[in-house]
Amino acid sequence: MNSHPFDEAVALQRQPDGSWLGHTHPAYANMVGPFGGITAAQALSAVLRHPDRLGDPVSLTVNFCAAVADGHFVVQARAVRTNRSTQHWVIELQQNGQAVLTATAVTAVRRETWSLDEEPMPICPPPEDVPLPAVRAPMEFVRRFESRPISGGLPEVWDGKGDSSLSQLWVRDQPPRPLDFASLASISDIFFPRVFIRRSTHVPVGTVSMTVYFHASAEQLAQTGSGYLLGQARAQAFRNGFFDQSSQLWNQAGVLLVTTHQIVYYKQ
Amino acid sequence: MNSHPFDEAVALQRQPDGSWLGHTHPAYANMVGPFGGITAAQALSAVLRHPDRLGDPVSLTVNFCAAVADGHFVVQARAVRTNRSTQHWVIELQQNGQAVLTATAVTAVRRETWSLDEEPMPICPPPEDVPLPAVRAPMEFVRRFESRPISGGLPEVWDGKGDSSLSQLWVRDQPPRPLDFASLASISDIFFPRVFIRRSTHVPVGTVSMTVYFHASAEQLAQTGSGYLLGQARAQAFRNGFFDQSSQLWNQAGVLLVTTHQIVYYKQ
Repeated sequence: MNSHPFDEAVALQRQPDGSWLGHTHPAYANMVGPFGGITAAQALSAVLRHPDRLGDPVSLTVNFCAAVADGHFVVQARAVRTNRSTQHWVIELQQNGQAVLTATAVTAVRRETWSLDEEPMPICPPPEDVPLPAVRAPMEFVRRFESRPISGGLPEVWDGKGDSSLSQLWVRDQPPRPLDFASLASISDIFFPRVFIRRSTHVPVGTVSMTVYFHASAEQLAQTGSGYLLGQARAQAFRNGFFDQSSQLWNQAGVLLVTTHQIVYYKQ
Repeated sequence: MNSHPFDEAVALQRQPDGSWLGHTHPAYANMVGPFGGITAAQALSAVLRHPDRLGDPVSLTVNFCAAVADGHFVVQARAVRTNRSTQHWVIELQQNGQAVLTATAVTAVRRETWSLDEEPMPICPPPEDVPLPAVRAPMEFVRRFESRPISGGLPEVWDGKGDSSLSQLWVRDQPPRPLDFASLASISDIFFPRVFIRRSTHVPVGTVSMTVYFHASAEQLAQTGSGYLLGQARAQAFRNGFFDQSSQLWNQAGVLLVTTHQIVYYKQ
């Protein structure tokens, strides 16, 4: 049995000094350097593999400092504070001794409490009724996801005529793979830059910072398995070189697994 | 002329080792320790005062690791990567050599581009038509803000009967003070925990992580001056001990200054 490219990509090797050695994976190549979601998953992976970890991820913020070059990298994940049920992590991903990504994460032991999803899952056709996209971006990482755009897909004509940044899609790993916290971090970055959708115009872009709030428990991820996720994304403001985008990911049973936000650089 | 308590609270003194010495301020006391917004502003203040800073804040993530004790603290702000127009900061606030807050920030030199606010400013009565609240929480920091709840204010009766987490309010510093990036970070944390509003039930809470995206330029802050901001906040999911809340702050002219998100611990 072949291993899944995602598992190869997030594999890390513990170093004698406590840091982790990893490598970029050609299967997740973007235009320049790797897909940001895989880099986020690699950073989180250092926490997930750490022998001192307490609980599961609750929040993750990754800051993309510089283009990640193809090849090896080192991840340092430091538990700066461990409380009774929460733990605070500071993470840095380096190449040639220079930071290419900084991150912070919170893990926690979660207990059952009163719970409620306030953001309703949008009513959408089931994945089997949504065709694969007519247009697919040419980057290699795009092939690592089965994405079925319901609305707000990549424009077929880049005519500058967009009128909304809202997108809805079904998505899962390709080939399918049981969901875990690392792959959920990766899929959180699956939404194309909102400026493409809103403007139907192609401009240079790059995510600067992404925050993921994990609402799902490990049990809910296990229940989700390799099923489809319903993703929704939209922007709030595009202003002088930076825009934000906010997204949600639900499983097919309607459980809101993740809410995620990013701020993205754009030119022109 | 007396100095404004906010300026006293975010004053930091440079230490020989490059760190900054600050102190909690009684005017911003919360139930236990200080108001989180003031701690966020103090962390950002170390970046804003740093002689090596490039540009203005674009994003800030603060993680509250432990209760901040009344008294002195040390802030370390390190520029880990400086690019042509963006700069990445790693920040830590310590008391007795232990981290009480970790943070990352991105600053950038911004250029004029195609811009558009997609999230519309809600239609609300003007601040002069909105009375001060009938109920005001007893914490000292609450007096540092003039807050005029339009909808979703603190319940007058805690009867467990809430049905929405949405709040809208007008807010500004009290006494009024010209807005800057530090005070905007502080005001980003002004929204009461959504679980209070949604449930009309009082439970123990504490913000774990907050992210602020600054859409405003220094010029737009100057134009805002000491005017009111329209704030809006709502939650997406409450699940097993943690909920998220997403907020926006507009100035009276309708410019979206900030979008902000947090994940908050709650009990029961």
